[in-house]
Amino acid sequence: MKGKAEKIILVTNDDGVTAPGIKALIEAVRPLGKVVVVAPDSPQSGKGHAITIGVPLRLDPVDIFEGIEAWQCSGTPVDCVKLARDKILHGLPDLCVSGINHGANHSINVIYSGTMSAAMEAAIEGVPSVGFSYLDYSFEADFSLCKEVAHSVAKQMLETNLPGGTLFNVNVPIVAAADFKGVKVCRQADAKYVETFDERRDPRGKKYYWLTGEFTNRDNGDDTDVWALANNYASLVPVQFDLTDYKMKKELEKIWK
Amino acid sequence: MKGKAEKIILVTNDDGVTAPGIKALIEAVRPLGKVVVVAPDSPQSGKGHAITIGVPLRLDPVDIFEGIEAWQCSGTPVDCVKLARDKILHGLPDLCVSGINHGANHSINVIYSGTMSAAMEAAIEGVPSVGFSYLDYSFEADFSLCKEVAHSVAKQMLETNLPGGTLFNVNVPIVAAADFKGVKVCRQADAKYVETFDERRDPRGKKYYWLTGEFTNRDNGDDTDVWALANNYASLVPVQFDLTDYKMKKELEKIWK
Repeated sequence: MKGKAEKIILVTNDDGVTAPGIKALIEAVRPLGKVVVVAPDSPQSGKGHAITIGVPLRLDPVDIFEGIEAWQCSGTPVDCVKLARDKILHGLPDLCVSGINHGANHSINVIYSGTMSAAMEAAIEGVPSVGFSYLDYSFEADFSLCKEVAHSVAKQMLETNLPGGTLFNVNVPIVAAADFKGVKVCRQADAKYVETFDERRDPRGKKYYWLTGEFTNRDNGDDTDVWALANNYASLVPVQFDLTDYKMKKELEKIWK
Repeated sequence: MKGKAEKIILVTNDDGVTAPGIKALIEAVRPLGKVVVVAPDSPQSGKGHAITIGVPLRLDPVDIFEGIEAWQCSGTPVDCVKLARDKILHGLPDLCVSGINHGANHSINVIYSGTMSAAMEAAIEGVPSVGFSYLDYSFEADFSLCKEVAHSVAKQMLETNLPGGTLFNVNVPIVAAADFKGVKVCRQADAKYVETFDERRDPRGKKYYWLTGEFTNRDNGDDTDVWALANNYASLVPVQFDLTDYKMKKELEKIWK
């Protein structure tokens, strides 16, 4: 008879191993099992599902979390998850948690987010996975509510018999604990960024551009993550990586010659 | 009354502006409208939906395609599409085509592919978009069949009243023209990579890792892109960027406390 072995929880992020958000996440999940950290050695925001193929990767131990095995990797968040499996865990963890991201990853951000891509990479491997993000960008952000949410969601994921490939995108609003309404299951809002690039001249007179963008929600639904966050809920969107548009597929089969 | 203005076709890729695949794609679509090229100045394979936020971007004209306005960008494929809209086209094109990628982007590759992410970025803006990939990786690949497929798909996209956000992932098999069976509408196969990292030592004795991976198809369906390509079809998968798993959402609403 197999005993109740301690659960292995892989922790990663995209803000880098020294970001306050990952420290908060480690504290949130360490009562739930054996935590192993593999995270980028530098900020990797906006890296999406990038992998490193043109240059080799470095992986070094770090001793910055009391009593926790931790590694920093020179690659992207997705590289961290791949390396963790092959070189650190020599197998799959029971749960992968990513974050806590400094800044929102609701709606279309799921596409650009390194935090969510790391979690998705583990989900592709069949590991129940979740990315956590906090709407407060600042280095000094107070992660106490996030920690409660992360602990509770991770605990429920470990205790629920979830199908392989389960992936959640959880965002936490900036709200006083007394006004917080709990976790709400949502769909991804139909939103996008309207970009304008800031055009400048370098000291040699040559043009260069900085990406700037304004978030635009074009979705009035009250079942979206953007709505939930605006109404003091944490949003939980179940995310899939089968990108097939089945409705369109059916239409195309009729008309496509 | 508005006349029939020439269609604007944005061409991009992830292999870089000098790759043979983009030249083939330009040749395939130039009879269909006014072509404008904005592509990375260096190979960007595996960049997924990465955007550049930590460093500024460069954008320079290049004169390598006879009679075609072309620009090279120092950023990712997604950056190219964003810059094209804001700084080159000053608006949206009628169609965005990306590729022709040197190598397959079927099944789970859609997640990692810079080719597909560029097309997805345009689709998020509401532009009908398509990524083309050829299963032959080599620099000397013969793109003649791909060019026919790309021309025909792009033509049909321009002539069909497709909803905003339409996005296709088209892959072309390595097959003699006589054995080619045409374009087949498919779903994304449930496949993944099994990674093992190649571990080496640098001249100072320090470890480093190269990503290597073996493609593993765990999907036996005869309606998938992997099946179609193995059976001498070009695969066409309609792709969505609403990643909400609606089936899981319904389940969670029942059980999630």
